[in-house]
Amino acid sequence: MVDKQYVVGIDVGGQTSKIGVVDTRGDVLYQTVIRSDIYGDDAEAFLAALADAVKDCIKASGKEGEIRGVGVGAPNGNYYTGEVAYAPNLAWASKKSVKFAKILSKNLDGIPVTLTNDANAAAMGEMTYGAARGMKNFIMITLGTGVGSGIVIDGNVVYGHDGFAGELGHTTVVRHNGRTCGCGRQGCLEAYCSAIGVARTAREWLEHSDEPSLLREVENITSKDVYEAAREGDKLALSVFEYTGTLLGRSFADFIAFSAPEAIVLFGGLARSKEFLYEPMLKAMNESVLKLWRDKVKIIFSSLKESDAAILGASALAW
Amino acid sequence: MVDKQYVVGIDVGGQTSKIGVVDTRGDVLYQTVIRSDIYGDDAEAFLAALADAVKDCIKASGKEGEIRGVGVGAPNGNYYTGEVAYAPNLAWASKKSVKFAKILSKNLDGIPVTLTNDANAAAMGEMTYGAARGMKNFIMITLGTGVGSGIVIDGNVVYGHDGFAGELGHTTVVRHNGRTCGCGRQGCLEAYCSAIGVARTAREWLEHSDEPSLLREVENITSKDVYEAAREGDKLALSVFEYTGTLLGRSFADFIAFSAPEAIVLFGGLARSKEFLYEPMLKAMNESVLKLWRDKVKIIFSSLKESDAAILGASALAW
Repeated sequence: MVDKQYVVGIDVGGQTSKIGVVDTRGDVLYQTVIRSDIYGDDAEAFLAALADAVKDCIKASGKEGEIRGVGVGAPNGNYYTGEVAYAPNLAWASKKSVKFAKILSKNLDGIPVTLTNDANAAAMGEMTYGAARGMKNFIMITLGTGVGSGIVIDGNVVYGHDGFAGELGHTTVVRHNGRTCGCGRQGCLEAYCSAIGVARTAREWLEHSDEPSLLREVENITSKDVYEAAREGDKLALSVFEYTGTLLGRSFADFIAFSAPEAIVLFGGLARSKEFLYEPMLKAMNESVLKLWRDKVKIIFSSLKESDAAILGASALAW
Repeated sequence: MVDKQYVVGIDVGGQTSKIGVVDTRGDVLYQTVIRSDIYGDDAEAFLAALADAVKDCIKASGKEGEIRGVGVGAPNGNYYTGEVAYAPNLAWASKKSVKFAKILSKNLDGIPVTLTNDANAAAMGEMTYGAARGMKNFIMITLGTGVGSGIVIDGNVVYGHDGFAGELGHTTVVRHNGRTCGCGRQGCLEAYCSAIGVARTAREWLEHSDEPSLLREVENITSKDVYEAAREGDKLALSVFEYTGTLLGRSFADFIAFSAPEAIVLFGGLARSKEFLYEPMLKAMNESVLKLWRDKVKIIFSSLKESDAAILGASALAW
């Protein structure tokens, strides 16, 4: 019997979930999207709708009977247990633990389902199809609404004792009067270097200075506003990115002391601000890191097509 | 042919190197010590003397021809290359890289030699014979003159891309005006929580306060003096340990976010101050760690007999 040559990748998000059928080269043959936010707390209803959409997607790709497995990236997804537990942005899993992989596999007539969190899925995607192809040791950092991470050591994603390893967004980057993070801790990397953190820095700085800035015209500043102001040459916006990059670089120096990676790989919405983040990040990392790693560890940006990346990452789990 | 049932463990230190013949249960059949500090920068001379001592030790144990391999723990030892490179405390390797494993193996007529740094060797020892037996995910922290670490994930010591992973003593615990560490960085864990760091804290506090303390009578305060004063109930000495334990606990919280270990295992001279370090350490760790790990990760102290531990750790490499 020939091995089945296709897999399904699912990226579960708060608003929508993306589904794609993927071949061994990382080409997405067919993809579709469903809403994730119209099922209230009814996980079973969501998982029934998801299974239907997966079946439709497989049918439309013409690969029925040729699917080896389904890989899922989901916030707070646990690789060991196949559960999604207490995920703040998923109404149907925010107050309980959902046996996601088990139920979805049953709904799909037994196709194996493998689950992990979204940052680990991104790491798998980069390693299988992307910028980290051929690398055995790297750290994936996802800079989105939050800061996630997936750590790869000797070619394997690190899950740890309980399946929750790689929460580098919740390591401490500011120890002295650090901001309160959504998680309840103080001074987390995520409180500074996520999209939300960048907007917060801009708002704080505008409040505590009289410096003129294009951002003074903007209501409810987002990281995108800061990016656009920086592109216009706005000094305050440029300083916000320099600060953000510097904090990221300092954190990377500590991460390197842990696992001595070949590279740090960046992905996510905020990583698109590469032009403003890269230099201060690299500088701070090399200034802060132990001498033996100075100028040796690369910082690279994801090379995956943004629209496919999340699906590819999840699908890589299923091989 | 029956497998060879014995190994040799060697713990290379700045002053002395300990050698022992070890059986599968972790019993040290015979051990000996040689000086490491009388060879100047002549690595070949040291490695010749070491090989002679190993041969004598094997002979005295009565296990000639039954040695499966030799495991070595050495400062700045690299598992991948078998080299000891730029180790500040080893005169014969402080300014160059020494092909330690290759030369020693040749001097021992081809017995395989495996090398790693001392903290990784300690982690192997704990996993094979000690407090971490049966654990697949833990972090070993050695609290000695410096702060070393060995990280175990899925039952394997993490070496990283270049063999130097696990330098947690050189992650940042004080970000704001941190002390300068021996490595040149600011605010390193090692600058605060090593034996030297503890003595430094005591001296700084004595200088900046008028608080009465037994330590005011002591010249050239060491961590041992601080320990003894604490045992006498000296308030300042007790506060020094509380501060040290708190900084350790905060750092552990960040380490946990990396690899989600089952336990942190402590070893080394300073770990003997368990009675003063444990409570503040555990409290700070659980206050600082992400909620999902609160009260879940153990802090345990090495159960290996101090005199054998270093040899056992190194010997565990050779299996």
